[in-house]
Amino acid sequence: MLEDVLKTIAGRREQSLERLKSFLSIPSVSTQPKHAADVRHAADWLADQLRFAELDVRVMPTGPGGSGHPVVVAKNRHVRGRPTVLYYGHYDVQPPEPLDLWDSPPFEPTVRDGKLFARGASDDKGQVWCHVEAVTCWQAHGGVPCNLTMLIEGEEESGSENLEQFLEEQKAHLAADVCLVSDSAMFAPGVPAIDYGLRGLCYMEVFFEGPNHDLHSGIFGGAVPNPANVLCRVLGQLHDENGRVTLPGFYDRVEEITQTERQMWKQLPFDEAAHMKAVGLSHGSGEAGYSALERTWCRPTCDINGIVSGYIEPGAKTVLPSRASAKVSFRLVPYQDPHAVQQAFEQFVRERTPDNVKVSFKNHGLAPAVVVPIESKASELAAQAVEKAAGRRPVFIRGGGSIPIVASISQTLGIDTLLVGFGLPDDRLHSPNEKFDLTCLEQGTRTAAALYERLSLLPTKSLPVAG
Amino acid sequence: MLEDVLKTIAGRREQSLERLKSFLSIPSVSTQPKHAADVRHAADWLADQLRFAELDVRVMPTGPGGSGHPVVVAKNRHVRGRPTVLYYGHYDVQPPEPLDLWDSPPFEPTVRDGKLFARGASDDKGQVWCHVEAVTCWQAHGGVPCNLTMLIEGEEESGSENLEQFLEEQKAHLAADVCLVSDSAMFAPGVPAIDYGLRGLCYMEVFFEGPNHDLHSGIFGGAVPNPANVLCRVLGQLHDENGRVTLPGFYDRVEEITQTERQMWKQLPFDEAAHMKAVGLSHGSGEAGYSALERTWCRPTCDINGIVSGYIEPGAKTVLPSRASAKVSFRLVPYQDPHAVQQAFEQFVRERTPDNVKVSFKNHGLAPAVVVPIESKASELAAQAVEKAAGRRPVFIRGGGSIPIVASISQTLGIDTLLVGFGLPDDRLHSPNEKFDLTCLEQGTRTAAALYERLSLLPTKSLPVAG
Repeated sequence: MLEDVLKTIAGRREQSLERLKSFLSIPSVSTQPKHAADVRHAADWLADQLRFAELDVRVMPTGPGGSGHPVVVAKNRHVRGRPTVLYYGHYDVQPPEPLDLWDSPPFEPTVRDGKLFARGASDDKGQVWCHVEAVTCWQAHGGVPCNLTMLIEGEEESGSENLEQFLEEQKAHLAADVCLVSDSAMFAPGVPAIDYGLRGLCYMEVFFEGPNHDLHSGIFGGAVPNPANVLCRVLGQLHDENGRVTLPGFYDRVEEITQTERQMWKQLPFDEAAHMKAVGLSHGSGEAGYSALERTWCRPTCDINGIVSGYIEPGAKTVLPSRASAKVSFRLVPYQDPHAVQQAFEQFVRERTPDNVKVSFKNHGLAPAVVVPIESKASELAAQAVEKAAGRRPVFIRGGGSIPIVASISQTLGIDTLLVGFGLPDDRLHSPNEKFDLTCLEQGTRTAAALYERLSLLPTKSLPVAG
Repeated sequence: MLEDVLKTIAGRREQSLERLKSFLSIPSVSTQPKHAADVRHAADWLADQLRFAELDVRVMPTGPGGSGHPVVVAKNRHVRGRPTVLYYGHYDVQPPEPLDLWDSPPFEPTVRDGKLFARGASDDKGQVWCHVEAVTCWQAHGGVPCNLTMLIEGEEESGSENLEQFLEEQKAHLAADVCLVSDSAMFAPGVPAIDYGLRGLCYMEVFFEGPNHDLHSGIFGGAVPNPANVLCRVLGQLHDENGRVTLPGFYDRVEEITQTERQMWKQLPFDEAAHMKAVGLSHGSGEAGYSALERTWCRPTCDINGIVSGYIEPGAKTVLPSRASAKVSFRLVPYQDPHAVQQAFEQFVRERTPDNVKVSFKNHGLAPAVVVPIESKASELAAQAVEKAAGRRPVFIRGGGSIPIVASISQTLGIDTLLVGFGLPDDRLHSPNEKFDLTCLEQGTRTAAALYERLSLLPTKSLPVAG
């Protein structure tokens, strides 16, 4: 039966690409209020596609008074005795800025050299599309052989702030045996991977305010606090000489990397020098004593994602800025508590800010890290599916990114998540010229189709069959 | 005779204000390339006004191939035996940004509560206008009784980068006995002042470049250098715990404040607490061991005037920026060498920047500090003129700002400069809602008229009378 589905997929290749281009042309940037209507449009567009795949679809509001971006929930007809797979993805995208660095406009999907360029091409619309297309193709052959609930949200790139509440409220409706996510990458071209760990996140914005208006640096300079100076002085202390984060208690609960993992990863086809050269660096750097893979997969970080203060136009202005602000995020590893990191950061900043400068904070999202067991029935079935579709058994790796909802799914629904990514490491996620290889689109769709077939063999807890 | 001129000034009050409004409505922002035509327009407009005052006017190009903004040079008929006064001012203005903080648009001059609000109202168009109007009014009474050369430039707010060369080339044409500048403020309302010192400036921009494009902070975070982190770490070390600048050698040639000056300034009507409260601060701060006046008049500083890196739009973006840059300026005091400070800053930054981050610099202007002798014939005549026009003898103070050309005039033309300002300390120079009190406009015009009368009594070196 799967063979027939794979043939249908091959036959619909052009159609599938055109549909994905339509999806990518909607600028569903969840973090920018000006794109709110576009985000809604993307949800409705996606719902239509899922109805075409003969699923029962609901576009459901989130947040207080429906103020959040909607969640698309789609189900096939659930049959008692079959295992239930909860597929999770997101239809929102990162901001496209800086626009001048794109070779083609971010919301005008363009194929060059076998690659599809657009914001969201890989993260996550392209990978969502692999699942939608796989389910559509299964439909021509009696439908996917497991119970399927698809949950596709619109706030992943802005911290999934309303999804936890939504999960809690819809717990019964979303009950499943396992969760499946494709929002990551293969390890390398031709080397498919299953991620078993994700880092968490604590994303803060800090605002410093000195004088109540910008001042002349000659008339006042030297006698008043300068919030830009203060910002550098305070945030410049967040790392020590060895590249370690200086927040008190930051490493208290961080576990050392196991020998098993170190050995497993040493066998991966990875050239650190080439990896750094590809992004224009003579060599990488970071916390002393760790390799690049270890630094990004298993070690927590602190990075400034944006700073602005004073005069930033061309030329010179002799001004003392009245305000300065920075977006600062921490990537977290298992057992670190995002709330504790938030508190430690706020205290760190307050203790170092002079008493004639006001400081305030905004929280842009907290998520703990997750690690899921490798040696489970679900992992094994997923590995078989990947091998079937891609012709090679996947490697087991960890990821440096965060998918906040994975921890919530574990806590709220009590199930593990399989992270099977279809992208490639050079997809330029969150950067200009994001892309998705057409070979990834096809292999991802094949893999998704195979996953639904293999996971139908999962033992089920015989969940109540709800509408 | 002066009495008659002062009557003419009083009679033309409305006319004078309207002309000044026209001048202020031209957005002659010299540092922003988009305003190049406006800068030229301001020069031509000013030349027309000076022709109306029956001066011989030339709008002269500056810079390589005339690439700089023009200088307006205007002269009355020079008479052998009379002293020559070189008046210097500037018709360019600071950028108006941030625009949203102006109560009325910066280039739509508006009178509210007896104050004229506009960019350049006080710095320096309003004060230039006092001189133009004074000369125009003298014209009705036989003209100013000294030889007058007016030199009004268009690059003061962008570092006067071409004026030094211009002075050198036009040395003979600009020869004078004394230079007169009104680009500062009275000490307080009703307390006129003559400035005898100005700080110098070293204004640099520094650029940090890490990866060749913005990266995903999950995928790369922890393993690559983050230029925003580097910027904070490096620039955060520019001050020590006592608010002193940490550049090696920075204070080597700085002189301590004399007891005479400390005593003189203690008698000034100055309430530091109120001064700070007026700009929204609970209290001032800066280099330990100095008062606010001492910090701004006699001590060198380092201030960040602008920083930008990464994502600065609303919301969160988990991006590692590829670039970060800051505008950093040092206010200098007598005997500090701006070139040496520039070199020390560049070395300081390079030594602290990791070897996988590129660093580069742009110089936005260097000027040494100046101090002119108080006990000279010219200072005494100027003090008499101020007393005549304002009804009170001026106090002698120093200023924290920089007028780069004053040092050049001393070096190139071998003459001292009288700094007689007509503004007020709360004029919000370089800030939103810059203003010039209408009383300052009138008293400034009266003072300018009196200055040309008093300075005609200066002994002359009998300079050659040139066209």
